[in-house]
Amino acid sequence: MQTPLTHKLQIRYPILQAPMAGGPTTPELIAAVSNAGGLGNLGAGYLTPEQIDQAIREIKERTAHPFGVNLFVPEPFTESVDEIRQMNNSLNSYRARLGIAQDPEITKYAESFEEQIQAVLDGGVPVCSFTFGIPGASVIEALKQRGTVVIGTATTVEEAIRLEAAGMDAIVAQGSEAGGHRGAFLNRQDEPLIGTMALVPQMIDQVSLPVIAAGGIMDGRGLAASLALGASAVQMGTAFLACPESGAHPVYKQKVLTAHEEETSVTPVYSGKAARGIVTAFMKDMNQYAGEIPPYPIQNALTRDIRQAAAKANNPEYMSLWAGQGVRLATTRSAADIVRHTVDQAMSILNR
Amino acid sequence: MQTPLTHKLQIRYPILQAPMAGGPTTPELIAAVSNAGGLGNLGAGYLTPEQIDQAIREIKERTAHPFGVNLFVPEPFTESVDEIRQMNNSLNSYRARLGIAQDPEITKYAESFEEQIQAVLDGGVPVCSFTFGIPGASVIEALKQRGTVVIGTATTVEEAIRLEAAGMDAIVAQGSEAGGHRGAFLNRQDEPLIGTMALVPQMIDQVSLPVIAAGGIMDGRGLAASLALGASAVQMGTAFLACPESGAHPVYKQKVLTAHEEETSVTPVYSGKAARGIVTAFMKDMNQYAGEIPPYPIQNALTRDIRQAAAKANNPEYMSLWAGQGVRLATTRSAADIVRHTVDQAMSILNR
Repeated sequence: MQTPLTHKLQIRYPILQAPMAGGPTTPELIAAVSNAGGLGNLGAGYLTPEQIDQAIREIKERTAHPFGVNLFVPEPFTESVDEIRQMNNSLNSYRARLGIAQDPEITKYAESFEEQIQAVLDGGVPVCSFTFGIPGASVIEALKQRGTVVIGTATTVEEAIRLEAAGMDAIVAQGSEAGGHRGAFLNRQDEPLIGTMALVPQMIDQVSLPVIAAGGIMDGRGLAASLALGASAVQMGTAFLACPESGAHPVYKQKVLTAHEEETSVTPVYSGKAARGIVTAFMKDMNQYAGEIPPYPIQNALTRDIRQAAAKANNPEYMSLWAGQGVRLATTRSAADIVRHTVDQAMSILNR
Repeated sequence: MQTPLTHKLQIRYPILQAPMAGGPTTPELIAAVSNAGGLGNLGAGYLTPEQIDQAIREIKERTAHPFGVNLFVPEPFTESVDEIRQMNNSLNSYRARLGIAQDPEITKYAESFEEQIQAVLDGGVPVCSFTFGIPGASVIEALKQRGTVVIGTATTVEEAIRLEAAGMDAIVAQGSEAGGHRGAFLNRQDEPLIGTMALVPQMIDQVSLPVIAAGGIMDGRGLAASLALGASAVQMGTAFLACPESGAHPVYKQKVLTAHEEETSVTPVYSGKAARGIVTAFMKDMNQYAGEIPPYPIQNALTRDIRQAAAKANNPEYMSLWAGQGVRLATTRSAADIVRHTVDQAMSILNR
């Protein structure tokens, strides 16, 4: 199961646990995956530099194996006071229902990318991956100088070509099946949502970097299929969401374990950026404001209190339940069991 | 490369050429695929009983191997005179541009399904597949009594379960990557568009019938990947679109050979039913009438003169250019070469 990429990443199996921001990727999960021979990844997009620093230390306490940290590449956004006031008006009805304060004061829309990067550089991280675009050349250079492997995320062939030109070491091909935020950065408004089966071989033919297949891969069948397509590894997120080491909220895990493949949808209503999750009352109801959703990270900051209050009340209908289209195959196995089972099943398929 | 399904279909390789209605599936293409060891399929949804009869005879003149015929299962539709008048008003501007008559008289929206089935029964067809739903029990029974293998099309696990209960012999799992009409029949209005990588294993776990993977499969990598997912065969359409035996219009072939994976979209504007094709000026422009498109088959009949006039004028922008998301991998190889190359590549992947 070794590929040039597993060699470069110094991992035993070509399985990356996806960096699911917002709670699921605990140090326990990351260390369990890395200890099992895969690559655990911290979804650090929403974390403060201090939280990143702390998480890196906790991961290193639990594993001597490589792991990764994922950051969101910021994009410029304009803050419209009117747009925010209007959205807050709309969101206040949900706040009333959840019994929390109207029009909360937002002091910060997003963490400082520069400070997050500094925490990654200071922390001595084996792998750093990026979503939502291409970081500046100085960032890529600084990471590489410290021996960090850098990975970009592409949803089209053209994005992969740009990432290769920017000096990435590998590329995650994010198919339309994938849960969570879409990594599209060249065609954000009207993303073509290309399926993994179509995306991976077309990308492999146009770039020379190793390609990591992501989207709809849930077990050894998906791993074997991805390797057959020419991928050097897979990235699996939803497959780990409901495992004991995942930090996903218990009602979120319950939803993941009972949802069907047709119950997810891509929506911008939680964060201002398209993301795939299990359909909730909030998603359905917010469709009435389509076209009025402020861009990321504004909307993300505006809905934070609602998502947090819903989680506290164990009410999944106002939480973001990011999950991919393979969700029927999610299990409660331990992270190590998921890695082992995936590898064993893929081996038996490829060797039959 | 033999599976229980290839045995049942009496074909050498687990490759079905997709039944692309509207021109591409000439008797030459179908016979070439079947003679090469795959299963050629006639897209007969728009054909008169006489045309079906004629095509079957021409196929049988060219091959002694099995082949299939695909029909569209009709669904009830209501004809609104106002809606049709309004759409014709909108379409008249395209007609003016193409120099054809305004408000053409439509004498028939669709062919008679009963008469089409009779032609298939009379023709002695080895395989009959269906799209857009489940035919009546008497149809399935009559076909099976004549030894015809019956295949249904599903876009979700639930649709596959219904098709199995109805007595189908196999199921095409149509992933979101697939070109042409969406086969969705339980959730037509808000189809979840599940990618092949996610759909195939989830469907296989829930039905006992053989599953044929479709959507984004363009070469031996896609075939090997689909077999790894547990599929019994693949169905490939876009891969055959630009081959010499394909009846696709030359400018359509040219578009297929130059389009990128991100240039397709799912649209109801040509036929009233969602279908994936290369984006055209007509698709973009007609978006202004979203919500006013009459249902299939009405819209299909209303746009027919426009599509035909555009084809005559070699103007791809008003033709329907159905194609899947794997379109970058289309070639001008002969149909037999495509089958051979796909098999050889898959064998070398699976045996390495």
